[in-house]
Amino acid sequence: MAIVTIERKVLQKNDELAEQNRELFKKSGTFVINLVSSPGSGKTSILEKTLESLKGKVKVAVIEGDVQTDLDAQRVAKFGVPVVQIVTNGGCHLEAKLVQDALSNIELNGVNLLVIENVGNLVCPAGYDLGEAMKVVIASTTEGDDKPLKYPAMFRNASVLIINKIDLLPYVNCDLAELKKNALQINNNLTVFETSCTTSYGIKEWSEWLLAKT
Amino acid sequence: MAIVTIERKVLQKNDELAEQNRELFKKSGTFVINLVSSPGSGKTSILEKTLESLKGKVKVAVIEGDVQTDLDAQRVAKFGVPVVQIVTNGGCHLEAKLVQDALSNIELNGVNLLVIENVGNLVCPAGYDLGEAMKVVIASTTEGDDKPLKYPAMFRNASVLIINKIDLLPYVNCDLAELKKNALQINNNLTVFETSCTTSYGIKEWSEWLLAKT
Repeated sequence: MAIVTIERKVLQKNDELAEQNRELFKKSGTFVINLVSSPGSGKTSILEKTLESLKGKVKVAVIEGDVQTDLDAQRVAKFGVPVVQIVTNGGCHLEAKLVQDALSNIELNGVNLLVIENVGNLVCPAGYDLGEAMKVVIASTTEGDDKPLKYPAMFRNASVLIINKIDLLPYVNCDLAELKKNALQINNNLTVFETSCTTSYGIKEWSEWLLAKT
Repeated sequence: MAIVTIERKVLQKNDELAEQNRELFKKSGTFVINLVSSPGSGKTSILEKTLESLKGKVKVAVIEGDVQTDLDAQRVAKFGVPVVQIVTNGGCHLEAKLVQDALSNIELNGVNLLVIENVGNLVCPAGYDLGEAMKVVIASTTEGDDKPLKYPAMFRNASVLIINKIDLLPYVNCDLAELKKNALQINNNLTVFETSCTTSYGIKEWSEWLLAKT
């Protein structure tokens, strides 16, 4: 079996703009998370559950990133929080500049928590700092237990791992202990939560942890 | 709700190299498919089932694309077919040039079917022709039924849609009819298969269809 290896250069300049965003967030006292995962892992569902859970406790705003459609922003808008949709038109990740553009449509003062939902993509968003306090990566049990090894950059750059769709474990080929072991092998500092948006399992723990951060 | 829209330029030059690959495939009489999907949709599992099903009927070779690790190539190598692993080291999609490099490690003459398994990514591989006869997109039921609308380019550029993890339908929030409707709304020419790698449902239909193409 032959192995062909190719080096890739990481894009720059983005970090500078991310720092500007970070300054803005610091001034307004806004805690910012960057939600990342494969398509269909449950980013928007986790966000809906989180908004429900934090209702009345803290002021939240949302930036939705999608390749196409504002379906997710519509789902989020139902919770009565300010939401800005970024449509990347084929672009595979959010960049700090796009977030900066979106921020011009949000009054940050008084907002305790800003959730940025990235494009569904376990590869490209890993390298792009948006100015967030932390990346939160969602991995669902249906994707199998080898994903941290196969897409290590995202797990390396995240601070939190949410293992979602815990309710489906009996039906899928995924060893939960192995998944955690693989994730912690890539990044030993990950804080891990287990959730199900169907049964609401683990949502309280995650939401309270997040609330304590704001 | 504000909407910020950004235009993206599609990368070029790749198409030229893809044409060169296509010429090579034509000369050797090799039918080539480019397997694309989100991480964890079941590309490698479908491939394993296909290899099992086509064993002794046709000569197959495989090019594996991964961001990191050769886990998938190891899985495929067990079937005794020639396999080349491309490790992109963070790169989010295969390009025609990488396939060209990989081809220098494969004797194409006599190979009836070449399967290129792309990086798990529902966005970036959509724009990159590798010289394949067709893209085969896999969408799993666990990802929900809205993915064709949210990631339209991949479904637009594919010829075949395999809806995988059909066995999990009772447990997930996915309307199969809606998923098909959304996919066909984006691309009315899609040939659709329904499969489960757990129960082997639909593998025979898919494999026989593929065999007839070689």
